[in-house]
Amino acid sequence: MASDNQDDLVNSSDPLHPANLIPELCRSFYNLGWVTGTGGGICIRTGDKVFIAPSGVQKERILPSHIFVLPFPQPDLSPHTDRVFLRRPALNLKESACTPLFWNSFDLRDAGSCIHTHSQHAVMATLLWPGAVFTISHQQMIKGVRVSGTGRSLSYLDTLVLPIIENTPNEEDLKDSMAEAMINYPEAAGVLVRRHGVYVWGTDWEKAKTQTECLDYLFEIGVKMKLAGLPTVLNEPL
Amino acid sequence: MASDNQDDLVNSSDPLHPANLIPELCRSFYNLGWVTGTGGGICIRTGDKVFIAPSGVQKERILPSHIFVLPFPQPDLSPHTDRVFLRRPALNLKESACTPLFWNSFDLRDAGSCIHTHSQHAVMATLLWPGAVFTISHQQMIKGVRVSGTGRSLSYLDTLVLPIIENTPNEEDLKDSMAEAMINYPEAAGVLVRRHGVYVWGTDWEKAKTQTECLDYLFEIGVKMKLAGLPTVLNEPL
Amino acid sequence: MASDNQDDLVNSSDPLHPANLIPELCRSFYNLGWVTGTGGGICIRTGDKVFIAPSGVQKERILPSHIFVLPFPQPDLSPHTDRVFLRRPALNLKESACTPLFWNSFDLRDAGSCIHTHSQHAVMATLLWPGAVFTISHQQMIKGVRVSGTGRSLSYLDTLVLPIIENTPNEEDLKDSMAEAMINYPEAAGVLVRRHGVYVWGTDWEKAKTQTECLDYLFEIGVKMKLAGLPTVLNEPL
Amino acid sequence: MASDNQDDLVNSSDPLHPANLIPELCRSFYNLGWVTGTGGGICIRTGDKVFIAPSGVQKERILPSHIFVLPFPQPDLSPHTDRVFLRRPALNLKESACTPLFWNSFDLRDAGSCIHTHSQHAVMATLLWPGAVFTISHQQMIKGVRVSGTGRSLSYLDTLVLPIIENTPNEEDLKDSMAEAMINYPEAAGVLVRRHGVYVWGTDWEKAKTQTECLDYLFEIGVKMKLAGLPTVLNEPL
Repeated sequence: MASDNQDDLVNSSDPLHPANLIPELCRSFYNLGWVTGTGGGICIRTGDKVFIAPSGVQKERILPSHIFVLPFPQPDLSPHTDRVFLRRPALNLKESACTPLFWNSFDLRDAGSCIHTHSQHAVMATLLWPGAVFTISHQQMIKGVRVSGTGRSLSYLDTLVLPIIENTPNEEDLKDSMAEAMINYPEAAGVLVRRHGVYVWGTDWEKAKTQTECLDYLFEIGVKMKLAGLPTVLNEPL
Repeated sequence: MASDNQDDLVNSSDPLHPANLIPELCRSFYNLGWVTGTGGGICIRTGDKVFIAPSGVQKERILPSHIFVLPFPQPDLSPHTDRVFLRRPALNLKESACTPLFWNSFDLRDAGSCIHTHSQHAVMATLLWPGAVFTISHQQMIKGVRVSGTGRSLSYLDTLVLPIIENTPNEEDLKDSMAEAMINYPEAAGVLVRRHGVYVWGTDWEKAKTQTECLDYLFEIGVKMKLAGLPTVLNEPL
Repeated sequence: MASDNQDDLVNSSDPLHPANLIPELCRSFYNLGWVTGTGGGICIRTGDKVFIAPSGVQKERILPSHIFVLPFPQPDLSPHTDRVFLRRPALNLKESACTPLFWNSFDLRDAGSCIHTHSQHAVMATLLWPGAVFTISHQQMIKGVRVSGTGRSLSYLDTLVLPIIENTPNEEDLKDSMAEAMINYPEAAGVLVRRHGVYVWGTDWEKAKTQTECLDYLFEIGVKMKLAGLPTVLNEPL
Repeated sequence: MASDNQDDLVNSSDPLHPANLIPELCRSFYNLGWVTGTGGGICIRTGDKVFIAPSGVQKERILPSHIFVLPFPQPDLSPHTDRVFLRRPALNLKESACTPLFWNSFDLRDAGSCIHTHSQHAVMATLLWPGAVFTISHQQMIKGVRVSGTGRSLSYLDTLVLPIIENTPNEEDLKDSMAEAMINYPEAAGVLVRRHGVYVWGTDWEKAKTQTECLDYLFEIGVKMKLAGLPTVLNEPL
């Protein structure tokens, strides 16, 4: 019966239920090249419940029955503590290694969803912007990017500034440097990870997804401009 | 009952009804990378009715019930005037910010449809052609481009000339410079907006769409040629 | 009744019937970027009947009822002669402007199908190979290319040589220079048209399609190699 | 009856049956550009049975009835020996020319599946890494690559090293040099073939597929980095 209750958490005929949305969105992200080779993913939080995909599986073939459900908040999410679950899949699966990183977006931004991609545009941006930030100005798409923690978006006259943190051998070890970047750049809509990818959040899955699309577009055009020898920032230096 | 009548405007089993076509075409444009991150869109005018998608939503997930219907002509479409509607969606949505720009195509070209994309090929073209026009010659695809306001298309021997206007912080403020470009280039099939995208129109949705495809193809090959050091115009200077 | 008979030529529940295959293949070619903006297409010949798509329509939205059927051979196919039809669509459509070019493949190669694309890889190849031929060697994909008029394919040690003809303002005017190239290069699997695209044929639609895929792959990799400064032919000069 | 028994080997309502998976996966690989023009493919081994696609057919249109089933092991698989079959398709088809190469993965790695692609990223990698190996370091995606013959994956601090063998006119003649490379690089997750593509295996089809995705991602980003003048290996020289 406890088991039945657990499965109720991921059984829904509503296509917008998180347990149905995560598989659908992951298929779409796979087709965009964001989550190939089992990397990347998306989590959705609805109030006190967090829905998370498993680790190390083909992201375009996830089923609702594969989804983990965790209570929010968690007693302790440091890497070496056992997490508390409302539901674990029957299969021998492990929750996404991104879990502590996703949690940063809940704790520090009150996010309702967080997306992690291995997009090649994001990775190339971290290689061609070797410093601590990715910056671009004078692109219409900048207007689509939210000023995190506010209800507004950037203006066309704003320069987009996104922090870049250095990658670590264990994904969980990114938790502290990602949190630090989020505190140092309180308005940033996401955090790039050098030679790895990007984390982007939003108040709900729609915003997380459209934010990821806007940023990925800006990484792509920024990389193209840099390779074409075009300046990517026209504003005064920051 | 008034409400029932309003919904009748977007309820149709005909897949070619504008309220069904707009969602379908936006999904297709999303897959082409033209309208990611909620940007871009399409409007369709059938005589005295204009069908327009909402602003700030995921363009690949629009439903017929999300569509706005406006009467054509409008008493006044200046940015600060309230528009007149035949139908507004029940949801808390706002009509596309492109509305005044789309209206340019109706007023100045008697268009039946207008498409706005954020295609990266269009944006790169505006960066690599820093002047007031994008030009390319000697491409078969030029033959697919209409001479606006006439029943004919360009010939293979014609040079395609498309005006480029400068972007503005508010999309609505593009209205006047776009209109000016359309008047100065009466035969142009569309207007590029620097660092932003392109507006393309046609006498109906098919023509607007195939015109957008032809122009996007020419932006893409033009950018490739420019980056490869190949001349993009072989004709005499204009 | 005559009309009924005509429609029988394009009404079939068999998905492999030419009137069903042409729409399906054109959708697939559209997604590959080969036939956007109404350009390009495919024809299929089954013995004494030729099935051809209309001109100037969206190639991903063709229906079986749009297909023209012509008898083969034709009394005279010179551009200014009226063609003979077994079936014309009820709509106000015109047969593809490629018809005389497709006919070259029937007359000179006894082809069962011919494909015309505006692939950007083909066009870039004609720009980066400014002479009369596209050549590439030492690519596994060369083994997929047929030696036209024989039952065999090229070997890995063969250099692929494909003639390039100059474009003309009217598509029909390519007929003679295409025929000349086919005669001068009797083993060529297709003919490139500078700044335009490529014509590729095969004994049936499968072979025409897989030949087009092989050649398009070779145009794409050849262009990438050329832009990267890599030699594209390792063999002795021809 | 023998014939009925043979067809039972490829008749299943289970979408995960090898005879259903191979057609589905080949369609997906076609859309990724890995198996166009009839090249490339996948085989699946379930214990003592090997399922293999036919040679020279459109890989996106394979049906379960086209699949060959061979017993494993085979008495002798040298190129000039007749192979033993549990099932041959009724059509006039030949088993994939990759068969002896696939067999290497069974014999030397106890693989459950092997994938062969003509991916342009793989081919470009073999051209831009002219030596005997492809190497890349400091990419998150490296963590997705298995250390062949072990239960573990590479770490972020490891340099990926993949052997490159020279192409031969006959695909079967790659068997010995591929086997030699597998012996010399016992931990390699695949073998690149210069100017041709890549072979990648796994303990089952999921692992073979995700390994191929990880490696293809690394070929793509490696090629981009090389063309952008970025170093692809930061570690000490091997």
